[in-house]
Amino acid sequence: MSTDDTTDASTGSESNCGGATDDASTESESKCGASASSPSSSTGSCGATDDRSDEEEVGATVDDFDADPGRLVAVGLGPGQPEGMTAKARSALSDAEHIVGYTTYVELLPDEIVEGAEDIYDTPMCGEVSRTEEAIDRALAGNSVAIIGSGDPNVYALAGLALEIVESKGATASMLDFDVVPGVPAAQSCAARVGAPLVNDTVSISLSDHLTDMPTIESRLHAAAKEGFTISVYNPWSRKRRDNYAKCCEILLEHRDPETPVGVVHAAGREDERVEIVELGDLPELGETDLVDMTTTLLVGNEDTYVWDDRMVTPRGYETKYDY
Amino acid sequence: MSTDDTTDASTGSESNCGGATDDASTESESKCGASASSPSSSTGSCGATDDRSDEEEVGATVDDFDADPGRLVAVGLGPGQPEGMTAKARSALSDAEHIVGYTTYVELLPDEIVEGAEDIYDTPMCGEVSRTEEAIDRALAGNSVAIIGSGDPNVYALAGLALEIVESKGATASMLDFDVVPGVPAAQSCAARVGAPLVNDTVSISLSDHLTDMPTIESRLHAAAKEGFTISVYNPWSRKRRDNYAKCCEILLEHRDPETPVGVVHAAGREDERVEIVELGDLPELGETDLVDMTTTLLVGNEDTYVWDDRMVTPRGYETKYDY
Repeated sequence: MSTDDTTDASTGSESNCGGATDDASTESESKCGASASSPSSSTGSCGATDDRSDEEEVGATVDDFDADPGRLVAVGLGPGQPEGMTAKARSALSDAEHIVGYTTYVELLPDEIVEGAEDIYDTPMCGEVSRTEEAIDRALAGNSVAIIGSGDPNVYALAGLALEIVESKGATASMLDFDVVPGVPAAQSCAARVGAPLVNDTVSISLSDHLTDMPTIESRLHAAAKEGFTISVYNPWSRKRRDNYAKCCEILLEHRDPETPVGVVHAAGREDERVEIVELGDLPELGETDLVDMTTTLLVGNEDTYVWDDRMVTPRGYETKYDY
Repeated sequence: MSTDDTTDASTGSESNCGGATDDASTESESKCGASASSPSSSTGSCGATDDRSDEEEVGATVDDFDADPGRLVAVGLGPGQPEGMTAKARSALSDAEHIVGYTTYVELLPDEIVEGAEDIYDTPMCGEVSRTEEAIDRALAGNSVAIIGSGDPNVYALAGLALEIVESKGATASMLDFDVVPGVPAAQSCAARVGAPLVNDTVSISLSDHLTDMPTIESRLHAAAKEGFTISVYNPWSRKRRDNYAKCCEILLEHRDPETPVGVVHAAGREDERVEIVELGDLPELGETDLVDMTTTLLVGNEDTYVWDDRMVTPRGYETKYDY
C-alpha cells in the first residue's frame, strides 16, 4: 500500500482515494527488502522481521510460538482520512492491542486510536510482505493485531496476502480468529468525486504488471472495453510503467469513441488533489503530466456515459422505462 | 433499493450486504407506481409525488420553485447497519434537514439521526424514481436533503438516477451543490465475510434484465468468465428471473471448472444471514433454494481461487515473487 516511486511514497493509495497500490508497494519491497530498514519499526519482538533477505523469506512458523494465538483483523480504512472510515473499522482499531501498517496510513489514524494502542508497527515504502508477516507473527505470539490499509482489504490489498502467509506458517485463519473489516474502495471514493460514472456493470483493472503479466492485463482491457463495462484503472502510471499506460490507452481507443468521458482523480483528499473529466482521446498525452501517476485513479465511462454540469453520468437505464 | 419480491421487500439490499438492488426496486415501481401508495409518505409538500402515473412521469420542474435551491447529497450507508456507515456519511445525515429513502434503510438509521432530522420521507418497496424525485423537489424547494441507499451510490444505485432527474427538471447539479458520499459496496461487504475472494482484477454484473437486456448481460458474463476476473453477481435470482440465473450458471460453467469456489452470502447482517462457500457446479441447483434470492450476492472465484480453512483466497500473485 505504498508506491514504487519515492516521491509518492508517503501518499500512495491514500491519495488514490483509498486505492490499493500494493502491487507497487511490493515493487518497492523487491527493491529495498525487509522492514529492518524502517526507522519506526519496533524491536522485532516476534523475531520474524530480522535477517530478512530481499526475497522476503518468511521466518517464524506456528511452531515457533508457545503462546495461545491472539487475533488478526485486516481493516480497510477507506479513502484514508478518518471521516472515510466506518464505525466498525474504528472500533476494530480501538480493540486491537497492536496496529500494523504503512507509515502513511498510521499517520492518518485519529490520535485516540494511536494513543490507545499498546504498540504501533509501521514501515515506510518497503515491506508489504514483511509488514504483513510481522502482523501475523504478533498475532501468533498472542496479541490482538489489526493490519491496516487504505481502501478495502479485498481490492488489490492485504486480505489475501495475510491468509497466504498465515497458511505458509502452518497456522490457520480460525486459530487467529481472522477477520476482514471492509472499507470504501478507491473506485467508489473517486467516482463520488465526479458524480455517477460507475452506475452500471463495472470492472476494475490494475496496470501494474508486477504480479499480473501484461498480456493478461491487455486481454482483460480488450474484453472490458468491448463489453460496455465502465472501467476503474488502478496504478495507471509510473516511470517504470509508461508502456503499460500507453498500451492501455491504445486498447481503450480501439473499442471506444475518443470522446468517451474519463474521470481522472489525482491524489484525492490531499492538498495536491486534482479532479478532471477529460476525453479518452486526451488520455495518452496526459501520461507524462503530473495529473497521472501512481496516486491517480482513472474512471473510464462506457458508450452511454456523458458529461453534464461538470459531472460524469453513466445512465443506469431508467430513462428507457420512465418518463422524466 | 428494494426488491421485486414482496417477501423480500423489507430486506432488499440491506441484506444484500449493502447491495444496490435498485434494478429490482424499479420493477416494483412499474408494478405499483408512485409513492402515494406509501403509508409513511409525507404530504407531498413539494407537490411532485402527487397524481403520478405508473409511468412515473416527472412532475415539477425547476420553474415551479420560487425558493433559493437547497442542497442534495446522495449518501451510501454501506452494509446498512450503523457500524458499516462512514463518519462522513453520518455527518452528512446529521447536516441534512430532510432524509429521503427506502423505509428499510430509514429504519436502520441511528435514532439521533432520525430524531435530528426535520422530516423523514420514506417509502416501502415502491418508488425508487418517485422517491428520488421527491428528494430533488425538496432540495429545489430550498431544503438540505440527503437521499440514502445501502452500499455505494455509484453501485447500481441512485447517484446517476438523481443526476438524470435533476437534469430532466431543467435544474443543475451545481444549483443544488449536489454531492455523493461513498459507502462500502455489497461486493466488498460480502467478500469480507468469506475472506479474500476478490483480491485481483474483478467485475460486478447484475442479473436483473429490467434495465439491461439479457443478451448484453450474457455477453458480459462470457467475457468476464473468459478473462479470469473474479465476478460479483448482484440480483442473482427472483421468481421472475429464474432463467437469468440458470443462464448465468451455464455461462460460468462453460469457462470455469465446476470446482471453482463461489461465495454465497444471503441476507448478510440479518438474522437469516447465511454464508456458504460452494462449488460452481453446485450453483444451478441452489437457484430454487432459499439460499439464493434477491438478498444474495454471489462471489465467483477465478481459476486461481481456492478454499482454505473455510475462507476463499484469490491469490494476488505474491507467491510468484516472494518465498513464503
